[in-house]
Amino acid sequence: SRSINLAVIPGDGIGQEVVAQGLKVLNAVLPQDVKLETKEYDLGAQRWHRTGETLPDAELEALKGHDALLLGAIGDPSVPSGVLERGLLLKLRFAFDHYINLRPSKLFPNTATPLAGRPDIDFVVVREGTEGPYTGNGGSLRTGTEHEVATEVSVNTAYGVERVVRDAFERAKARPRKKLTLVHKNNVLVYAGHMWKNIFDRVAAEYPEVTTDYLHVDAATIFFVTQPERFDVIVTDNLFGDILTDLAAAVTGGIGLAASGNINPTGTFPSMFEPVHGSAPDIAGSGKADPTATILSVALLLRHLGYETEAVRIEDAVSADLAGRDGVTTRTTDEIGDALAVRVAS
Amino acid sequence: SRSINLAVIPGDGIGQEVVAQGLKVLNAVLPQDVKLETKEYDLGAQRWHRTGETLPDAELEALKGHDALLLGAIGDPSVPSGVLERGLLLKLRFAFDHYINLRPSKLFPNTATPLAGRPDIDFVVVREGTEGPYTGNGGSLRTGTEHEVATEVSVNTAYGVERVVRDAFERAKARPRKKLTLVHKNNVLVYAGHMWKNIFDRVAAEYPEVTTDYLHVDAATIFFVTQPERFDVIVTDNLFGDILTDLAAAVTGGIGLAASGNINPTGTFPSMFEPVHGSAPDIAGSGKADPTATILSVALLLRHLGYETEAVRIEDAVSADLAGRDGVTTRTTDEIGDALAVRVAS
Ligand SMILES: CC(C)[C@H](C(=O)O)[C@@H](O)C(=O)O
Ligand SMILES: CC(C)[C@H](C(=O)O)[C@@H](O)C(=O)O
Repeated sequence: SRSINLAVIPGDGIGQEVVAQGLKVLNAVLPQDVKLETKEYDLGAQRWHRTGETLPDAELEALKGHDALLLGAIGDPSVPSGVLERGLLLKLRFAFDHYINLRPSKLFPNTATPLAGRPDIDFVVVREGTEGPYTGNGGSLRTGTEHEVATEVSVNTAYGVERVVRDAFERAKARPRKKLTLVHKNNVLVYAGHMWKNIFDRVAAEYPEVTTDYLHVDAATIFFVTQPERFDVIVTDNLFGDILTDLAAAVTGGIGLAASGNINPTGTFPSMFEPVHGSAPDIAGSGKADPTATILSVALLLRHLGYETEAVRIEDAVSADLAGRDGVTTRTTDEIGDALAVRVAS
Repeated sequence: SRSINLAVIPGDGIGQEVVAQGLKVLNAVLPQDVKLETKEYDLGAQRWHRTGETLPDAELEALKGHDALLLGAIGDPSVPSGVLERGLLLKLRFAFDHYINLRPSKLFPNTATPLAGRPDIDFVVVREGTEGPYTGNGGSLRTGTEHEVATEVSVNTAYGVERVVRDAFERAKARPRKKLTLVHKNNVLVYAGHMWKNIFDRVAAEYPEVTTDYLHVDAATIFFVTQPERFDVIVTDNLFGDILTDLAAAVTGGIGLAASGNINPTGTFPSMFEPVHGSAPDIAGSGKADPTATILSVALLLRHLGYETEAVRIEDAVSADLAGRDGVTTRTTDEIGDALAVRVAS
């Protein structure tokens, strides 16, 4: 009989609330014969305040034993900026070699977009997750003085770039439009940028059926708002991917709907699924958080574990639910979770 | 009697055409007693093809002798990416210590914006121009092999950050709303990000009348499309500024209207004014390029040289001209230049 052994990190702020809805829908969608085991990990701001720990080795080890991780949100204004991000969230992405940070963007019917004309948006960003400016390389000299020098080193390897580029070509090949856009800034960041472009062009030769394209990151932001329908699959660096996927979320109905998967395709380590949004401490506990992004992240989790039918069932339920939203009635976090749980079960 | 000794670098593609209109309007707006001298520099793709040079020392020296530089656009697909950008455009910005890259964003009446609801946009981005990921530090090891490692080093100094932050506070103080937003990514780029934030907070104490705000760059892109009216002055790093100002141009009527100034406020070196757009080789020579961005850059140039009345006259002319555009009639580059020259003269 089948089973899923899931690690759950609710984290901070609205993390707890949205993860509860994610689990509710997961339970509702899973076939009877699949045994779901969950273990909650107390990590985040409260833990740090209590113990000074962000992610101790013992817990990192324990997390390795799960089939996948579901994470709510990390971060609180009471914790210095970077402590939890680097010490917990990025530590997980790096330790578990999550080199594919997968972020689909789709403008669902009936959802609000700031763009006039409601363009037809349906693309996926394949963001590199273990290199680039996110490595934590760099430092500060004469910190806090007028002579301070602070550096940040973007580290990029052919190994790291090629594997994410290949993954993106595979995804593009599997989609109807078969189009892949590389986004970088190779007219300024010539070392990393040229390596990305050269590897991209070399791998492209193996995928004649995929149409390719290159855009500088600044130009890409223009097309995100003026012609988002031109994108199918985008592959890009860790930092550019961070920026572009928030913008993508904004133009496709908001950060309340944006799902993501931090994927280790080799299966050596468990993959981690999380909404793109943050912990939103201002609305925590108010029932105002939209759990849809987390629920869509659960769909990505199911797809990753081979439950394609169930993943699609969740995505269809979200589409139907969104189509039914009238833009006037507001529902609580719990009510949205309930509605989606009912839809996926039936 | 007063005089302006201007260096003109038309550059590539549409650069030539738009610069011609900029000069036309400059001539029309200047009072009779101001003597305008211009010297054209043949720099860009053609020069590089002919001689292999991007910006020889002799020309860099000669350029120093001017009161200001007017640049059209740099770049051509026939030249490897980065050669002209690093060897000419960025070389000028760095050699002339253009530490303020000033990019105003305003949604003029009657212009197209992809945003529904036409928000009231009027902000200015003060982008750092001489540091950050643009320094060209970094390198590539085992280039072209499967073991390649490519690095890009963002270099940030307290000296460089403080001067741009101070400039931004002065600009915010002089504006009606008196609001300044720092944009960085200090939850990930902790060395540079914390230095920026600490300096920003320290300088803020000297400007109690200015309201301050901090946003991560990813979140900033969301607000650019959902709430652009919240911004007044933004100060940010070289790369984030590059990305944000293209997005800003996109939401405020397009890159055809976005002006910029690369400013050395100390006056040690001449400042350089250029449209944010590129050389657009696809429409070069067709008369389709909108010279407005260049003409607005001429307004920034005049303001920098102390011709405030004339700067405002150009900006008002552009507003009036845009208000008169019907969105159906298309005019050539030349016709728009003529119309604006007539307006500023009368
Ligand atoms: C919280 C932060 C470290 C993170 C990132 O920068 O990757 C977030 O913005 C994201 O996109 O998941
Ligand atoms: C052409 C390029 C080097 C330049 C930059 O990145 O600064 C351009 O995008 C700009 O914004 O002026």
